[in-house]
Amino acid sequence: MFHSGGEERGRCYRHNNSLYKMFVKAGDSKKMVDEKIKVIHYGLGPIGVETAKLVLSKKNLQIVGAVDISEDKAGRDLGAVLGLDDTLGIVVTDRAQDLFSSESADIVIHTAGSRIMTIYSQLEEIIGSGINVISSSEELSFPFTANEASAKGLDAAARESGVTVLGTGVNPGFIMDALPLYLTGVCKDVTTVRVERYVDAGTRRLPLQRKVGAGLSPHVFRERVSQKMLGHVGLVESLQFVAHYLGISLDRIEETIDPVVAEQAVKTDYFDLNPGDVLGIKHIAQGFLGTSVIISLDLRMYVGADDPHDAIFIEGNPSISLKVEGGVAGDQATAAILVNSVPGVVAARPGLVTVKDLPAPHFYR
Amino acid sequence: MFHSGGEERGRCYRHNNSLYKMFVKAGDSKKMVDEKIKVIHYGLGPIGVETAKLVLSKKNLQIVGAVDISEDKAGRDLGAVLGLDDTLGIVVTDRAQDLFSSESADIVIHTAGSRIMTIYSQLEEIIGSGINVISSSEELSFPFTANEASAKGLDAAARESGVTVLGTGVNPGFIMDALPLYLTGVCKDVTTVRVERYVDAGTRRLPLQRKVGAGLSPHVFRERVSQKMLGHVGLVESLQFVAHYLGISLDRIEETIDPVVAEQAVKTDYFDLNPGDVLGIKHIAQGFLGTSVIISLDLRMYVGADDPHDAIFIEGNPSISLKVEGGVAGDQATAAILVNSVPGVVAARPGLVTVKDLPAPHFYR
Repeated sequence: MFHSGGEERGRCYRHNNSLYKMFVKAGDSKKMVDEKIKVIHYGLGPIGVETAKLVLSKKNLQIVGAVDISEDKAGRDLGAVLGLDDTLGIVVTDRAQDLFSSESADIVIHTAGSRIMTIYSQLEEIIGSGINVISSSEELSFPFTANEASAKGLDAAARESGVTVLGTGVNPGFIMDALPLYLTGVCKDVTTVRVERYVDAGTRRLPLQRKVGAGLSPHVFRERVSQKMLGHVGLVESLQFVAHYLGISLDRIEETIDPVVAEQAVKTDYFDLNPGDVLGIKHIAQGFLGTSVIISLDLRMYVGADDPHDAIFIEGNPSISLKVEGGVAGDQATAAILVNSVPGVVAARPGLVTVKDLPAPHFYR
Repeated sequence: MFHSGGEERGRCYRHNNSLYKMFVKAGDSKKMVDEKIKVIHYGLGPIGVETAKLVLSKKNLQIVGAVDISEDKAGRDLGAVLGLDDTLGIVVTDRAQDLFSSESADIVIHTAGSRIMTIYSQLEEIIGSGINVISSSEELSFPFTANEASAKGLDAAARESGVTVLGTGVNPGFIMDALPLYLTGVCKDVTTVRVERYVDAGTRRLPLQRKVGAGLSPHVFRERVSQKMLGHVGLVESLQFVAHYLGISLDRIEETIDPVVAEQAVKTDYFDLNPGDVLGIKHIAQGFLGTSVIISLDLRMYVGADDPHDAIFIEGNPSISLKVEGGVAGDQATAAILVNSVPGVVAARPGLVTVKDLPAPHFYR
């Protein structure tokens, strides 16, 4: 079509085994659009598996490889690891670099860790191999403050290799940062931003129920918080994202992580919780100017949460009050936004970018 | 900053009196960012006035000219036309081409018409002068179907001149098209999209109350509908936008425009409405695949509307049900999104684009 969209305008050309991004003229773009984007999956945990299954359903995407270091996955056919009836003819490998050297991929979908510290060398390897990367790493969604040195390193490496690096997901990446920011697009002024995300952890998979501390005693919960073993990774990044793009230099950020405790017995598929047991987590991040809270992100994930929802309140001109009934489901939505963001990342300028730098992702067939 | 955002990455260079867009290296962008974007306002009706006032409040924008053909505005100082206490030293002109030739502007904010037919020559003049343009024209938001020939002409001219052309606003441009599309970004599948926008026209300015038919008899209302003098311009464009980017080839579109009739007496600042009088409009556009409604846009703007709101319902995986209490206010929001979209348009690739092609706009100081 002559009104080439975001995903059509900048494409990747392989040249001397590294990728060069360039803008193509409208007339050239058709052929490129018909070519499939070649995907490597890095990390086949629950999100990685969901993501890979979704990629299989997309006409414009093609899986050309998969990496996982765990013994029960490496060496097996990807189809088996995904729980499919059929094999895919793609053997999961634990040797990422070998795969990157032998397979010409356009993008790695990386779902192998939250903390930049633990994934930095993986990202370096991907970038150094001249492959774009989109990661579910929460810290990577806005790494420019809390992980400034790493962000600079990744940005320089990505520019050098001519590839794009993006961290995204549903939270961070959408509901508590990008969507509120987008809503301010219709505002003449913005005074405060408040976001609530209340999730009923009882409806979620076991690792998530564990992650929010369900079943712990309040004492052990607090201990784990102090050891930084509990708490939603990325909440502060979301807050910094919103503040940065609204042009607000916060005086300080306050973060509190508290247990939500059962008042009566509660049962999930995995836990029998008694009064006094921890149901989950209440994690709040607030950005201040002086004594005023300018941005507030309130995340509650606990078993049996009443009225689960996402809500965004923007005070300004006009003010906006928005509620998503039931909230945007976590794992499915994260897999979706990773896959839906692929064309935008492949088309984007080289460097470490945020979701704000790219056209907003959307579902495509 | 080293993580240069959308508005920083592609800037305009004036060269031989036409604009060349190019991508700048990170190191070069700082100086460019500090330069103000030079704005010309084209059309000083209610939206144009709101927009110009907002531009005056922005640090990164500078008004360098204003065009309006009406006798009560042309020749006067812009400050007076905006109702300000101070003059601005900018005389509103009715000679657009002279202004474009004498003033080096980066972008024209065009708020002088809804229909492409009536503004085509204005847009041609702006584009031919090598200036980017962002317009509140509803038809321009997605002109590729209903105004295909015009769209091709504008796209070719814009590419030739190296400028970007965008149509946007709150509706179309945001609440019934871009926002629903963005929400699908967290969906693994999308079956149907339904949007409601119920506006209490009684709270809006007189021209809007007139525009929705308030005070007419149902007979006259239907007559005006048949003469295409009533109905929300852009509703079908919004529907085509959503269908296009979701990759849905609709079998047909059905559009209905009906009066909402008073059951009891209603009073606004401008009208005394009796039972049987028209309160406003119910305008519905539906996109079908076979006999199934896949996309439904339901716009009701009438005096005394109960529970005014915007709502978006996406059926899919996950499904999303979102409500904006009170709805996003029209005129203020339209002025805001025009101004908030300016940096993205200046930075974008040349050609006729849609809001889908650019990073989502957001409020900035």
